[in-house]
Amino acid sequence: MQKPTFDPGLTQQYAGPLRRIINPDGSFNVLRRGTNWRDVNPYLYLVSAPWVHFLGLVLLGYVLVNSLFAAIYFMLGPNALQGSGDTATAPDRFLQCVFFSAQTVTTVGFGAIAPASRAANLVAALEALTGLLGFAVATGVMFGRVSRPSARIGFSERAMISPYQDGSSFQFRMVNRRANSLIEPEVTLMLMTVMRADGSHRREFNLLKVEREKLMLFPLTWTVVHPIDAESPLAGKSAADLENLQAEFMVLVKAWDETFSQTVHQRFSYRYSELVWGGKFLPAFGVDESGSLQVHVGEVGRFIAAGTGN
Amino acid sequence: MQKPTFDPGLTQQYAGPLRRIINPDGSFNVLRRGTNWRDVNPYLYLVSAPWVHFLGLVLLGYVLVNSLFAAIYFMLGPNALQGSGDTATAPDRFLQCVFFSAQTVTTVGFGAIAPASRAANLVAALEALTGLLGFAVATGVMFGRVSRPSARIGFSERAMISPYQDGSSFQFRMVNRRANSLIEPEVTLMLMTVMRADGSHRREFNLLKVEREKLMLFPLTWTVVHPIDAESPLAGKSAADLENLQAEFMVLVKAWDETFSQTVHQRFSYRYSELVWGGKFLPAFGVDESGSLQVHVGEVGRFIAAGTGN
Amino acid sequence: MQKPTFDPGLTQQYAGPLRRIINPDGSFNVLRRGTNWRDVNPYLYLVSAPWVHFLGLVLLGYVLVNSLFAAIYFMLGPNALQGSGDTATAPDRFLQCVFFSAQTVTTVGFGAIAPASRAANLVAALEALTGLLGFAVATGVMFGRVSRPSARIGFSERAMISPYQDGSSFQFRMVNRRANSLIEPEVTLMLMTVMRADGSHRREFNLLKVEREKLMLFPLTWTVVHPIDAESPLAGKSAADLENLQAEFMVLVKAWDETFSQTVHQRFSYRYSELVWGGKFLPAFGVDESGSLQVHVGEVGRFIAAGTGN
Amino acid sequence: MQKPTFDPGLTQQYAGPLRRIINPDGSFNVLRRGTNWRDVNPYLYLVSAPWVHFLGLVLLGYVLVNSLFAAIYFMLGPNALQGSGDTATAPDRFLQCVFFSAQTVTTVGFGAIAPASRAANLVAALEALTGLLGFAVATGVMFGRVSRPSARIGFSERAMISPYQDGSSFQFRMVNRRANSLIEPEVTLMLMTVMRADGSHRREFNLLKVEREKLMLFPLTWTVVHPIDAESPLAGKSAADLENLQAEFMVLVKAWDETFSQTVHQRFSYRYSELVWGGKFLPAFGVDESGSLQVHVGEVGRFIAAGTGN
Repeated sequence: MQKPTFDPGLTQQYAGPLRRIINPDGSFNVLRRGTNWRDVNPYLYLVSAPWVHFLGLVLLGYVLVNSLFAAIYFMLGPNALQGSGDTATAPDRFLQCVFFSAQTVTTVGFGAIAPASRAANLVAALEALTGLLGFAVATGVMFGRVSRPSARIGFSERAMISPYQDGSSFQFRMVNRRANSLIEPEVTLMLMTVMRADGSHRREFNLLKVEREKLMLFPLTWTVVHPIDAESPLAGKSAADLENLQAEFMVLVKAWDETFSQTVHQRFSYRYSELVWGGKFLPAFGVDESGSLQVHVGEVGRFIAAGTGN
Repeated sequence: MQKPTFDPGLTQQYAGPLRRIINPDGSFNVLRRGTNWRDVNPYLYLVSAPWVHFLGLVLLGYVLVNSLFAAIYFMLGPNALQGSGDTATAPDRFLQCVFFSAQTVTTVGFGAIAPASRAANLVAALEALTGLLGFAVATGVMFGRVSRPSARIGFSERAMISPYQDGSSFQFRMVNRRANSLIEPEVTLMLMTVMRADGSHRREFNLLKVEREKLMLFPLTWTVVHPIDAESPLAGKSAADLENLQAEFMVLVKAWDETFSQTVHQRFSYRYSELVWGGKFLPAFGVDESGSLQVHVGEVGRFIAAGTGN
Repeated sequence: MQKPTFDPGLTQQYAGPLRRIINPDGSFNVLRRGTNWRDVNPYLYLVSAPWVHFLGLVLLGYVLVNSLFAAIYFMLGPNALQGSGDTATAPDRFLQCVFFSAQTVTTVGFGAIAPASRAANLVAALEALTGLLGFAVATGVMFGRVSRPSARIGFSERAMISPYQDGSSFQFRMVNRRANSLIEPEVTLMLMTVMRADGSHRREFNLLKVEREKLMLFPLTWTVVHPIDAESPLAGKSAADLENLQAEFMVLVKAWDETFSQTVHQRFSYRYSELVWGGKFLPAFGVDESGSLQVHVGEVGRFIAAGTGN
Repeated sequence: MQKPTFDPGLTQQYAGPLRRIINPDGSFNVLRRGTNWRDVNPYLYLVSAPWVHFLGLVLLGYVLVNSLFAAIYFMLGPNALQGSGDTATAPDRFLQCVFFSAQTVTTVGFGAIAPASRAANLVAALEALTGLLGFAVATGVMFGRVSRPSARIGFSERAMISPYQDGSSFQFRMVNRRANSLIEPEVTLMLMTVMRADGSHRREFNLLKVEREKLMLFPLTWTVVHPIDAESPLAGKSAADLENLQAEFMVLVKAWDETFSQTVHQRFSYRYSELVWGGKFLPAFGVDESGSLQVHVGEVGRFIAAGTGN
């Protein structure tokens, strides 16, 4: 069995022609089975969950904690709280307990309802502590959510098979869509192909050499160029060949984000059907009337097709 | 005296046949003596302590601070606080001081009890400040606790001595049990053996070469393979030899966690008694009916024994 | 077309003679067009914005949230809140709602105004939660702002073309203006020139070799020296040549900040007009009367001009 | 002039025989002059300042903010606050304003004193916001203080000139005094000597090669060994020579702290007078009665002197 020349940590197993390996949002097309609740880190979950899930969970926790403490105050009897109306019906009294609980756990403490009995005072002291610790966690998770490092690199929608020196090359283009500085961006380019051997299918992975793997700075666009020389696995391949091989080009970018003071990672992929044979990228920056350099972030993918135009 | 070929930072001293060096939870079998309180970083302690210790300490601190301030309010006399009931007995009055203190330090401030005298007002102003600063520390430590980076890599329970190319190999398998992305995982594999020389025992450490020390991504399982070639310290060793040498295989894994934006480390070890001679790992992933790749996280250790089956 | 010997991630396009590439504050002279609101990370924006913008936004949010909840309380009718004065006019009542809202969202909760109806109690419970979550974000962003790693390296205002060994050299000097420790500082020096070919202009970038790219520690001044040897792109160039080429020397510094426990980056640049031909830096440190080493941070740029004096 | 073989970022200038370069606490013996207030990063200052300074500044800020707002409430007249006693004297009224301000800025809000006029309500709303933002900063700085990564490596008090293989060696020993894991510790060893040439003194710095610059783990003690071979600047030097050269051995350690998830750095130095010629370190670990390895952290410096004993 022929060994792949490079192991990206993916599998050689072939899962049919319909799926790409890396989705446009950078996630992998892999399902995970057999995990259990101990494999879930609550913080990682809360930091990654959509806002509506996160806020829903916070609200749910708020309601549960309030209900629990309200039930305790209620069970402590009508004299536990002052200001809650001695003549109130039981449902009214329970609602008063809920409102008092909410005012305690958030440390608002209006005082229109206040603990009167010793037991209620003690429970309220514990509830205020619970509230402070609970909101400490919520504060931490909120901070984790909003400050979570991420890159927002824009990729050209299409990759080009462009003329290059004496031969041709695989090219795609990137731009930092945000205004913050990315420093020392590095790129890794990988080709996935599906090989047929003995009637079965097998994935194969190859690193593709790029002209420059790393820049110092990244204020403009970056055209990543893989020269298709004799050593390239793309050498001599036609568009039909790449379709036949179900070629997928995987891109991994890594950079230092100056504002986050963190390393950020982003992934992207191009399938054979997203190549433009003979296309060329058009400049995405220019000089405006005042003499300043301008990057047109939205034009990172602008190209001219060979012959046919675009 | 023969020099070990590699120094992992451990000792050659031999501590008897019963102990492994790295426990399954990744900690070392080393006791520390002679440290004093200045060697304890409170933050490191609070961040690492079990939840029940941490919450117990928070509660203890809460009770102590409340008792201290309650004692001060009590000593300021019956007119220090309003709403606390002028006709109260001393124990009742002290309890009122405790409740007032709790309402102040948590900044709940119901107001049913409120500071009346100048001195009480001043102390309450300081207690509220104390409370805010104290809960600031608690918030920070809570955040440190919940956001503390960690990996949860699942290791196969057994390591295999499997056929490999023309010879054999030492193999174990790992999977990321969590759903978050680990990037550029790196592995270091180390063999510890106990040598007998001149009637005494001495530990020896050797790095074992692995086929691939680093992957780019880690969405699936990773079978780490040490080929037992002529240079391997395992060359020509039988199961009995490894038992005799009390062989322990130490695994150190390092990866970049995309959600934490941090490097995470994890350790594991296999003893000679956890090897399966001639065993082979069975695939832990497959393609489901919809054509998607699936990893079965719980089957990272699934293998077939040689001849005997499993 | 001649290929530049080094790609810093900038462009060869020439934008007129008036602009430098790196501004003295380290930012790039590049305008960005075509970005949209999805390209703005709110956290990055809030962390980078000037204090007056940030505080203005916080105040605006405070006013908006208060107005929104005040409107809700107002619509709940005169009996929603107690203590707000039953005979109040509508504008007065609305103001009371605003003040109550502010007391609720900040969790002050004086209680002089308090929720009376069920609906008002419920809204107040939600508003207190909103306040805690909102201020959790504000706390996180405040922490992000104040704790954002940065370096404050002082650069000499002028760079020197100084005698060096048998030839000459390009030199500039740096000092850490802060009292904290910078460890393992690294420098990258880059020359940008504008070449004329076929009537058009093109930028060219070259890395300049420096005597030492990295120090272990940085408690004193650091004179970075690029020897102008035969391989240097400065070899044989006169002041007029550099003006003609519109030479700009770009400096990138990277170090580990011990207090932030983070890598920090800083940029600077010298244009041809900021060179002193034949100048020499004067020492910026000395030994005081007590025998201690002293660095004069403000004298990092002190030099003596050739012949003419300074 | 002879060039030093290595530049640690320190100076060749000689500051008299009395001073060491690195103090035992790791700081440098360098005074900084000419900095101004813009060179002070408030966060770095507040995070590094002693606790008593930090808490003093917090208290000062609290008093100032309270005084400022109290003055405003006072100027708003006797009807601004309710519950503050209409018949109070001016000093009494001012004190009431101070207490109300403290209850507002900490968001305690007892309500016994409450804002009555529109203006007072508005100012109180702003003061509560001010308090929340101010304590957000205080929370961040507290977190920065307590969570600031640091190492606590214990160094042997003396370094040894010990027999080693066929010759001798410079040795010192380290231990992690804390219970947390330090991973991949790295050491740099540097020799500083003072040379006399032409009647003046000049410092010279040399890197000393060590047997192992890096370990994988650091659960035990680490004896760092510089073999004094022919290439060593110590070759052939006697104790009198090193005193004459005022030799100082500087140690820089770097490791990954698993609990902080951060790189930590620590420095130490040995002067010629802290060497033990012919001494040998005694083991600092052993096996206890239960067969467990034990490190005696306090015995990291235990040695036996040559001949004379210790």
